[in-house]
Amino acid sequence: MTETNKQFRLAARPVGMPKRTDWNVVTEPAKEPGEGEVVVKVLLLSLDPAMRGWMNEGKSYIRPVEIDEVMRAGGVGVVTASKSTKFKPGDHVVGTLGVQQVAVVHEKTLTRVDPRMAPLPVFLSTLGMPGMTAYFGLLEVGQAKSGETVVVSGAAGAVGQVVGQIAKIKGCTVIGIAGGADKCKYVKEELAFDACIDYKSEDVKKALRTHCPKGIDVYFDNVGGDILEAALANLARHARIVVCGAISQYNNAGPMKGPANYLSLLVNRARMEGMVVFDYADRYAEAAKEMAGWMAQGKLKSREDVVSGLDDFPERLLMLFRGENFGKLVLKVADA
Amino acid sequence: MTETNKQFRLAARPVGMPKRTDWNVVTEPAKEPGEGEVVVKVLLLSLDPAMRGWMNEGKSYIRPVEIDEVMRAGGVGVVTASKSTKFKPGDHVVGTLGVQQVAVVHEKTLTRVDPRMAPLPVFLSTLGMPGMTAYFGLLEVGQAKSGETVVVSGAAGAVGQVVGQIAKIKGCTVIGIAGGADKCKYVKEELAFDACIDYKSEDVKKALRTHCPKGIDVYFDNVGGDILEAALANLARHARIVVCGAISQYNNAGPMKGPANYLSLLVNRARMEGMVVFDYADRYAEAAKEMAGWMAQGKLKSREDVVSGLDDFPERLLMLFRGENFGKLVLKVADA
Repeated sequence: MTETNKQFRLAARPVGMPKRTDWNVVTEPAKEPGEGEVVVKVLLLSLDPAMRGWMNEGKSYIRPVEIDEVMRAGGVGVVTASKSTKFKPGDHVVGTLGVQQVAVVHEKTLTRVDPRMAPLPVFLSTLGMPGMTAYFGLLEVGQAKSGETVVVSGAAGAVGQVVGQIAKIKGCTVIGIAGGADKCKYVKEELAFDACIDYKSEDVKKALRTHCPKGIDVYFDNVGGDILEAALANLARHARIVVCGAISQYNNAGPMKGPANYLSLLVNRARMEGMVVFDYADRYAEAAKEMAGWMAQGKLKSREDVVSGLDDFPERLLMLFRGENFGKLVLKVADA
Repeated sequence: MTETNKQFRLAARPVGMPKRTDWNVVTEPAKEPGEGEVVVKVLLLSLDPAMRGWMNEGKSYIRPVEIDEVMRAGGVGVVTASKSTKFKPGDHVVGTLGVQQVAVVHEKTLTRVDPRMAPLPVFLSTLGMPGMTAYFGLLEVGQAKSGETVVVSGAAGAVGQVVGQIAKIKGCTVIGIAGGADKCKYVKEELAFDACIDYKSEDVKKALRTHCPKGIDVYFDNVGGDILEAALANLARHARIVVCGAISQYNNAGPMKGPANYLSLLVNRARMEGMVVFDYADRYAEAAKEMAGWMAQGKLKSREDVVSGLDDFPERLLMLFRGENFGKLVLKVADA
């Protein structure tokens, strides 16, 4: 029984916002698995800001997706056939599955997940890369400590929601920055941040001054641009800026905008440090265990925005850059 | 006997490059010392890039010079009268003396120096603030270690020359960046840096790639602007950028230029951290002792560019921003 596999393959390196024609949709029979390989029916795909960067040429923390290669994406799926001793049909797995219906991948690249432990989308969210990014970014790079003031942008997004909640668990005062009244309401009322600034209707620099009278100790940056500058303008002495992303800048056709007031780092003896979650891979299990415990205790909520389906991938991806997603954006490819 | 005191008082906050009319020259009788105060005949004044920042309004690591206040400057002088039990006429001292002929200052603000230990200009250079900045910036903030590649801009300047020499002493490969063939020759031949890039005639980004095949581990930034971007484009993983200054940007009438490629910090898991030398005041003596030892052994050379005189202060200060000084720029106000 050969399955059909619809795939999104990179057709062109986008200039500015990616568009449908930057991929070719190819339908072909699924590959046969080789020794050690596993056939995975893709159920859910993670849509992430980082995907925009993977479409560009040039050195980065990971190699670019090549032209005509299946677009890279993390996902959750169910094993349908296996030439691996580690996985059997019916197992649920996470891994880099790609934007397609059927992934044939090596057993080494997969991790088993237990669907009784949490709904499947959560394994792409708080118990997946965004959660790991938040955990290690805030605690290892940001060194957030009880009593400090933590500010996070993209506060209603996949990473931001977790950053703020962990900071609250650790005893910090937490200010979120998000776009729109609905997201801010969610961040304050559901996630219990101390405050949330609506960057669409407020002057972020002034609002940070009001909400952080002693300055910002940790700024977790997912967005870059003007909001990064607003945070730099409000640092406390010895502040740490965690550079996790810069979604406001990823689709610039021209040069990116650097923070004009970066000398605030000098004035405040502050630091700005980049992080890549893969560096903490050997500690994911430890973090997932702690976070699953917080979730079980109701201290850590996880919100996913599950949209369908594979055919709409290009348009769904753009939701991220328009700030239209609410919680972790997940593309539903197939029912279990 | 009342001495006359010629002073440069701030007349206006400059826009762009400071000009002569931004100060008023006032000559009046020197003040009488109060209890605990010391009268110091100013011999040498330190001309520093940071002075441009002190002329601006707004929050910084030190309060701005007020309009009509004597322009702030560090200096070396000789005590001519004293109402202090700590200093007596004939003592040589360093402190914030101001751009004037006679300073009347509190004993707490002065440190005695021994002119037999080093020529007086050295106390404003390698054994003064620039040396302390280099020492703590490189070793504490930059965490430079043996075998690493260190790059320093402003390599023939007051701070840069010391940074590179200490890095050599610590076993690093050291690449300087300076303006012009003469300075580069000095940096390579006299100071024994491994290489020096002439930013006036070379493509700094390409040259860094050539000289730092494994990337830059520590970049000590005195200049900002395009050279900061060139360094960011060549970082090694876990690199540290010490933000000490940004002389290329201090006289911008418009907004400063932020590093457009700061996401290199993310790709390389690198950090950028600001430093202010005053934070290390309780360790100056320890650093000065170690550096004086290196000087005595011939491992650490100190070059000063002594220019005269007080009347030419505004024009001499501009030498810094034009890159015309060669070594620490010192203004000679009077002979000993």
